[in-house]
Amino acid sequence: MHSVIEIIKKKRNGEVLSSEEIQCMVSGYTNGTIPDYQMAAWLMAAYLMDMNEEETAALTEAMMYSGDTIDLTSIPGIKVDKHSTGGVGDKTSLVLGPLVASFGVPVAKMSGRGLGHTGGTLDKLESIPGFKVDMSAEHFIDQVRNHQIAICSQTKSLVPADKKIYALRDVTATVDHVALIASSIMSKKLACGSDAIVIDLKIGDGAFIKNIEDAKSLATLMIKTAKRMDKSLVAVVTSMEQPLGFAIGNALEVKEAIETLQGHGPADFEEVCIHLGAEMLLMSNTFQDHESAKNACIEKLHNGSAYSKFCEMVTAQGGELAYIDEIESRIKNSFSKAFLSTSSGYIHSISAMDLGLAAMRLGAGRETKEDTIDYNAGIMLHKKVGDFVNVGDTLAMLYTNDEHGFEKSASHLESAYIFDEQPPTPSPLIITKYA
Amino acid sequence: MHSVIEIIKKKRNGEVLSSEEIQCMVSGYTNGTIPDYQMAAWLMAAYLMDMNEEETAALTEAMMYSGDTIDLTSIPGIKVDKHSTGGVGDKTSLVLGPLVASFGVPVAKMSGRGLGHTGGTLDKLESIPGFKVDMSAEHFIDQVRNHQIAICSQTKSLVPADKKIYALRDVTATVDHVALIASSIMSKKLACGSDAIVIDLKIGDGAFIKNIEDAKSLATLMIKTAKRMDKSLVAVVTSMEQPLGFAIGNALEVKEAIETLQGHGPADFEEVCIHLGAEMLLMSNTFQDHESAKNACIEKLHNGSAYSKFCEMVTAQGGELAYIDEIESRIKNSFSKAFLSTSSGYIHSISAMDLGLAAMRLGAGRETKEDTIDYNAGIMLHKKVGDFVNVGDTLAMLYTNDEHGFEKSASHLESAYIFDEQPPTPSPLIITKYA
Repeated sequence: MHSVIEIIKKKRNGEVLSSEEIQCMVSGYTNGTIPDYQMAAWLMAAYLMDMNEEETAALTEAMMYSGDTIDLTSIPGIKVDKHSTGGVGDKTSLVLGPLVASFGVPVAKMSGRGLGHTGGTLDKLESIPGFKVDMSAEHFIDQVRNHQIAICSQTKSLVPADKKIYALRDVTATVDHVALIASSIMSKKLACGSDAIVIDLKIGDGAFIKNIEDAKSLATLMIKTAKRMDKSLVAVVTSMEQPLGFAIGNALEVKEAIETLQGHGPADFEEVCIHLGAEMLLMSNTFQDHESAKNACIEKLHNGSAYSKFCEMVTAQGGELAYIDEIESRIKNSFSKAFLSTSSGYIHSISAMDLGLAAMRLGAGRETKEDTIDYNAGIMLHKKVGDFVNVGDTLAMLYTNDEHGFEKSASHLESAYIFDEQPPTPSPLIITKYA
Repeated sequence: MHSVIEIIKKKRNGEVLSSEEIQCMVSGYTNGTIPDYQMAAWLMAAYLMDMNEEETAALTEAMMYSGDTIDLTSIPGIKVDKHSTGGVGDKTSLVLGPLVASFGVPVAKMSGRGLGHTGGTLDKLESIPGFKVDMSAEHFIDQVRNHQIAICSQTKSLVPADKKIYALRDVTATVDHVALIASSIMSKKLACGSDAIVIDLKIGDGAFIKNIEDAKSLATLMIKTAKRMDKSLVAVVTSMEQPLGFAIGNALEVKEAIETLQGHGPADFEEVCIHLGAEMLLMSNTFQDHESAKNACIEKLHNGSAYSKFCEMVTAQGGELAYIDEIESRIKNSFSKAFLSTSSGYIHSISAMDLGLAAMRLGAGRETKEDTIDYNAGIMLHKKVGDFVNVGDTLAMLYTNDEHGFEKSASHLESAYIFDEQPPTPSPLIITKYA
């Protein structure tokens, strides 16, 4: 007890903690000998007094080894993982995994569920009838060995420290801190056992990182942490100023992912997939330059290879293949409504945060962990930033099975759009890269 | 839930909280709707991002009204309370209360118990057989009306918020912060209902305030908080660089207090009592200048009035009066031992903290709230700062009923003394005053 207070005091005074002190906090909290309130005080002290690279690496390592780790060494080749810091309409993993796997590069991906305005890959996949995301580590490794791709939920024994600490950060206003974010992401990714990691670092209104300075600090910290563990990491900073693609909502996003895997997805979403896919292929040594890798990705999307790999994964994980073919007609909602523009002009911005929250209110997301999801509910954008609209034009179609869904989402939708007489200056989707 | 996170976030971001927000934290935590971990995060944010005067006053007020308050208006005259921020060998209240009451000034004092290296007034009084410190508010008020003096424990319903928050601060490294200390002291003192308050603000090694800057901030904050509540407050900064008087330990300190009340106490202890007593008399409008008030105090100590008031209080609170007369022979310890000097030279410092801890190890104090106290155990200093000693001289006598007491206290005693060939520069006991 005494030494825990001393560790809190040390961090509170702005001193650098040793690996042993950080290990003591993490293991004590995970096994329950350190109570919530001492961890909460320590997290706030770390939030306000910061943690340096060594401390962040120590925290990452302590969390990574707080439970089981996945050993992928039995799978031949360089295993490449991908992680997105979370956005709205972000169905990237659904396309990227099969796309990269279609080159024979093993993709062993453990994903999470959505909360609040951001969606989760697992929820999207589970909108496919029969699709199973829970599997044993052995099953997971076998599937990657046989099909080069598996997307499953984290096993319960993986990084228990991160689960417990994250839940506490969520209710103590200690979420948006670079070192705490970096160690949370990295502990999970490193525990999953891949050799190389591409981070899709979203910035903007819909992301929890709002500006390029924080993105740079986070990227730098993750790269250094990965290096200490003999892993390579690349962070691509992409824009989350408006939702990615047109679809927001689980089944709607699967449909858009399928269209993209078939070579006719939305331009912005395809651009992100190809760019990140190329980065993953470079890390796996499949290509030597980004341009060739990108062209090869475009080819795989257009010649059916990526889509075929996606169908292979769906089948391997118990999903109903017929659903994929008939998805257009299988997505059913009791209520649909056009959201019309009351202004005319060029759309200058569409708040990803507001649309994420609107989709959540329609039933597509969870406000609390206990909420259930309506897989079919969501939003299809008809217009995006830069488009010109007249009064009465349809900005988006809303879908829900909740008779009060439209009312619940109304305030978020109304505040989401900003118009102007002049067209906006185009801003890049792929902002920069840190390696 | 949501708004609590927003309040934590606001303080974390260094913003000023409204009275309503602070009230929400205090009442929510007191009634159990805000869990420990959110209060801990908020306390650490307040500790590191600070609180201004308005916030400190709001916190004080919210804690003060978290339970019952004592209404002393039925007692005629200006009621003057005294609070010490805690020291070693600090038996001031035992002398000061009866001394001031002997002028007819009502002293209604609620005190605390000791923990760690500091002693508590209640423990000292309870070393007198039969002495009761637990009484109802009605009984307390009656006794002050009839005898001008009562010293009792805080009733359970008094400032429950402070009790709960203090216990949390103690285990989350958020104790030594000026605004949190000020609001804790002031909420208790204001809830006790006196019109005027003298704070004995101890600084030095044995106190939790180590320097004059912090003392000044704390004093200023308390004065401003008192003013907002229409109370007057004076803070006298006194030195706690060495123990006050010669006695450390409950019965030993009562004995020294009796000697002081009879006009033959240690010079340093008497000086503090007279100085603080004079301040209390000035605040009660009994005297108009400090010098006259001091001289009157000296007279009351020497003419038996103060001692007689002490005996009156002991009797009123059920204490055995014969014990007071025979205290010398009634203090019995199984083991006593002289602590001899292994150096020769002038004593430059005696660590009040170390001696407080040594006394605790001999049985005189509590390490945890659950520990019981040995009232007779303790330390009698034979030498103080400025005295010259030879090798083999007795620095102090140790008293205990624990056969391992001497071993347990040895390391604290050995590190407590610093000697030098030259005599130390004398430093004042009464450092300054803020009003």
